Amino acid sequence: MPIAFPGDAAISCSCQSKPVAQLAREVGLFSEEVEPYGRSRAKIRLDVLKRMEKQPDGKYVVVTGITSTPLGEGKRTTTLGLAQALGALLNINAFACVQEPSPGSCFGAMGIAVGGGYSQIIPLEEVSLQPSGQNELISAASRVVMDTIKAHAYYETKLSEKALFDLLVPLREGQRSVSPAQLSRLKKLGIEKSDPLTFTGTEIRRFVRLDIDSETTTDSGSLENEIMAILSLSSSEEEMQQRLAKTVVATNKSGDPVTTEDLNVSGPLAMVLKDALKPVLMQTVEGTPVFLHTSPLDDIAHGSPSILADKIALKMVGSKGFVVTESGHGADVGLEKFFNIKCRYSGLQPDVVVMVATVRTLKMHGGAPPVQAGLPLPKEYSQENLEQLERGCCHLRRQVENAQAFGLPVIVAVNKFSSDTDAELELVCGQARQAGAFDAVQYTNWSEGGAGALALAEAVQRAAKLPGSFRFLYDSQIPAADKLRTVAQKMYGAKDIELSPKAKEKLALYTKQGFGNLPVCIAKTHLSLSNDPMMKGAPTNFVLPITDIKANAGAGFLCCLTDSTNTEMDDPMWPCFHGNNLYHDSK
Amino acid sequence: MPIAFPGDAAISCSCQSKPVAQLAREVGLFSEEVEPYGRSRAKIRLDVLKRMEKQPDGKYVVVTGITSTPLGEGKRTTTLGLAQALGALLNINAFACVQEPSPGSCFGAMGIAVGGGYSQIIPLEEVSLQPSGQNELISAASRVVMDTIKAHAYYETKLSEKALFDLLVPLREGQRSVSPAQLSRLKKLGIEKSDPLTFTGTEIRRFVRLDIDSETTTDSGSLENEIMAILSLSSSEEEMQQRLAKTVVATNKSGDPVTTEDLNVSGPLAMVLKDALKPVLMQTVEGTPVFLHTSPLDDIAHGSPSILADKIALKMVGSKGFVVTESGHGADVGLEKFFNIKCRYSGLQPDVVVMVATVRTLKMHGGAPPVQAGLPLPKEYSQENLEQLERGCCHLRRQVENAQAFGLPVIVAVNKFSSDTDAELELVCGQARQAGAFDAVQYTNWSEGGAGALALAEAVQRAAKLPGSFRFLYDSQIPAADKLRTVAQKMYGAKDIELSPKAKEKLALYTKQGFGNLPVCIAKTHLSLSNDPMMKGAPTNFVLPITDIKANAGAGFLCCLTDSTNTEMDDPMWPCFHGNNLYHDSK
Repeated sequence: MPIAFPGDAAISCSCQSKPVAQLAREVGLFSEEVEPYGRSRAKIRLDVLKRMEKQPDGKYVVVTGITSTPLGEGKRTTTLGLAQALGALLNINAFACVQEPSPGSCFGAMGIAVGGGYSQIIPLEEVSLQPSGQNELISAASRVVMDTIKAHAYYETKLSEKALFDLLVPLREGQRSVSPAQLSRLKKLGIEKSDPLTFTGTEIRRFVRLDIDSETTTDSGSLENEIMAILSLSSSEEEMQQRLAKTVVATNKSGDPVTTEDLNVSGPLAMVLKDALKPVLMQTVEGTPVFLHTSPLDDIAHGSPSILADKIALKMVGSKGFVVTESGHGADVGLEKFFNIKCRYSGLQPDVVVMVATVRTLKMHGGAPPVQAGLPLPKEYSQENLEQLERGCCHLRRQVENAQAFGLPVIVAVNKFSSDTDAELELVCGQARQAGAFDAVQYTNWSEGGAGALALAEAVQRAAKLPGSFRFLYDSQIPAADKLRTVAQKMYGAKDIELSPKAKEKLALYTKQGFGNLPVCIAKTHLSLSNDPMMKGAPTNFVLPITDIKANAGAGFLCCLTDSTNTEMDDPMWPCFHGNNLYHDSK
Repeated sequence: MPIAFPGDAAISCSCQSKPVAQLAREVGLFSEEVEPYGRSRAKIRLDVLKRMEKQPDGKYVVVTGITSTPLGEGKRTTTLGLAQALGALLNINAFACVQEPSPGSCFGAMGIAVGGGYSQIIPLEEVSLQPSGQNELISAASRVVMDTIKAHAYYETKLSEKALFDLLVPLREGQRSVSPAQLSRLKKLGIEKSDPLTFTGTEIRRFVRLDIDSETTTDSGSLENEIMAILSLSSSEEEMQQRLAKTVVATNKSGDPVTTEDLNVSGPLAMVLKDALKPVLMQTVEGTPVFLHTSPLDDIAHGSPSILADKIALKMVGSKGFVVTESGHGADVGLEKFFNIKCRYSGLQPDVVVMVATVRTLKMHGGAPPVQAGLPLPKEYSQENLEQLERGCCHLRRQVENAQAFGLPVIVAVNKFSSDTDAELELVCGQARQAGAFDAVQYTNWSEGGAGALALAEAVQRAAKLPGSFRFLYDSQIPAADKLRTVAQKMYGAKDIELSPKAKEKLALYTKQGFGNLPVCIAKTHLSLSNDPMMKGAPTNFVLPITDIKANAGAGFLCCLTDSTNTEMDDPMWPCFHGNNLYHDSK
């Protein structure tokens, strides 16, 4: 008879979290670097990086997964559990870095906790239901941009150039002075003057009129996505402001990009977003420290917690410690972006890749019926079927090769479910080793906490001793089409790419504008290695259609859309709260 | 030669805020009732109300204003300054309650601080740029509702009734149990059973199918507005959940309202919103405690800080203390709703009305040219013009009468600007007394802090000694059309109202559905006593057109739209950061 396992909320309630001041002290933060946000949560000031500048970094472990069912593989739970095992059980300094959840996201089919079981972040109430303000600040920043574009369009028709100039560069006690952003705009316009009192009529006109082509104005959704990416990819406030300044929000009537700097809002934006750049410190049920910071707003995102979270954590754990950071979706999608975008900008060299796999998902890749979030699981998934599983392992082998392409040791971590049989688990581990994995380990931290991931932690420790030989998949200086082709062929298994006429046109434009050397961020379904979410296993022999490209000059990548028909994703999820008395008795 | 006055940011930086734990201790809160949010800000747990249950309330002062220019009268600055004067100077326990700003709202034409000058909330950075999470939680709650409606629509066509029933009331170890919300739904359906195992096929069908008419689904904007109103008008978590349960989000194909309770999400919503129901404690530059809580998301709002902020503050100050709370816009708009909606639900009896007026605005009512936010002020406003001012005083007299209609003493508070002459200020005070004001007082707390509002505070103290004779403008049991007519005639000066056919139809429907006895919340421009924003002074002899009515059953009012052409408001505001080096050097 199966024993009923306590729910996430019951576990969270049964574990006392340390007061955040104590937690911060234990990890080595000074009290002036810590801003409490609730009782068990704090934002960390970036000054700490300056103080720790000379300290060596710890080991850097990234968690990825195979291409999952819509239910996920438990990557986040594994990230937390691995840090628990390293920290509490092997007595090594360890930190986990994960993305920040959106409030209310806990009402999807995935459950209510961040992580789950005995590898979750506590208190559940603070992490799931008390926003850090990140999304609100990003919306506010986006509104500042959109309102300023609107005000410019309105007043450029309504006011004289002289009156506009008075508003933009007010006369105060006989003096006018330009802001640093305005100085940059003047340089771009070829006006090499800094004293506004000496401007000619023509110079004033060119300076005050943005002449935005209203058809080209960005939408607030895209802008918010780019701002989130900027928060995630910046290593300092200065870098954030520089990235914001470069963000293109429209095109003028001559076809030149208009940036937030041209709007004279890059300074205000940096001010609005300053608080959103601070990682949030919390803890697991076992007291392991966790940073939560930044989260993707949609599919077109690189999908990792922030560079700053990782950097601060790497300093805090010291040279013998470990930071375990998560990456989004499968290795083809999230890990590729983690390396080629995030590591390119952070300059950090990861040491080990942990790839999470489950028997359930490999059965799906071997032909078992589709899984739909929120609905009961087809019975095929709870019965042993070695043949189906073995067929699905072609997918695992491909993802192991994908991860190995970056030169790091790969550990396949098999997240053990109660319905998995020993034969099934051994089959998966064997296939992983055959594919060249450094090791393959079963673990059960969901039900046992850090103790359930001890063997995994030991494997990670061993792998981290190997000499580093990290490499990017491509040089960012090669033509953009070649970067796309490299990712499509080496990660997705495509025969080739096909650029739509629109994509070709955009690529030519961006190359001319100087954005050609940015890394590429391909928006592709996470439900298949190919662009067709229904195609499971390890497809080959397909051509990846690139339909459109947008330069996110501030975030620092070329956002490339593929023709991915995400039909499965369009089905609404059945929310998790029906029949769950927690929610109904919660008040 | 005028002396340059320091900017809001410079003042904020020059004033040291007390650590929030100290502030909380000083006002009498226990440490377990306080959740720090940053260094100088905390959320207050509602348990405190239970602990203080038996304590008497302090005096309750509401600040309103005349119908302003788009620049405002300084109501919030006055609210803070009056509390400063009572607290720091007269040595009385005093608390201010204001609405919570949205982050980034500080980039409009109104300036960067909450309050201003020496009557502002500090630290500016925390109050203006670190969201409390309120808006994000409201969005999350709204998403939960919208996603559930979507999921129901999808699965009601895709799944059998049996399968739906399994999802809604899962079978666990041979048992099914319904949530309290589901029990309520069963009662509404006339199914007097609580054991789901005994349901007949027909009962299951009626229970699981909501049959929502997709045309009638609320939009997320309206839903967010109603949720904000619910947060603002609830006196406890229980009341919030009850109001949420009553919130109508669609109509089914038979024309019956579908509530969040029918969706089985009222419990989850209460859980999501729990943290947003806690008032935020901060302080003024002089250390006076302030609660910030809830804010209107658009024009269709009652426009006051929350009932809970006021109730907790009234307990904290004790029987000899004062709570100064703000109301939105002019007395015709915000004060009427404060009394007829907010006080009706809180059961609190206010003691004194403070009505803010400025020479600038009364000149506008007397015929001076329009004022536009963000653009320079026409010169008429900086030169003495007693004739124009006296003409404009017809407006002041009408607003004083409006406030007096509720039976309370009214103090006209004349917010003195440096360009006002003594003759102008005396003229306004004289007119106010003639109109029946208890007193009329000039004050300067913007430039002098509490000391500048000492005479105002003394007048408030005197007025608060009068015996209370508060009354509502109408009995909520009278027909809704009569309530609308009463407000239109007594507050706005209208001859009558005119209901559109649509409004009549809705009124009949809502009366039938049992919502006829709710108070009315009229959405009218705040730029005129009438519905035409260009009509200044004290218009009469107009008919107020009521174009549409919506029952906000959860918030507890009938939302009535008028034909208000808010042309002035549609002009984009010129943002305040150009030429302001604060923003550009901020990092």
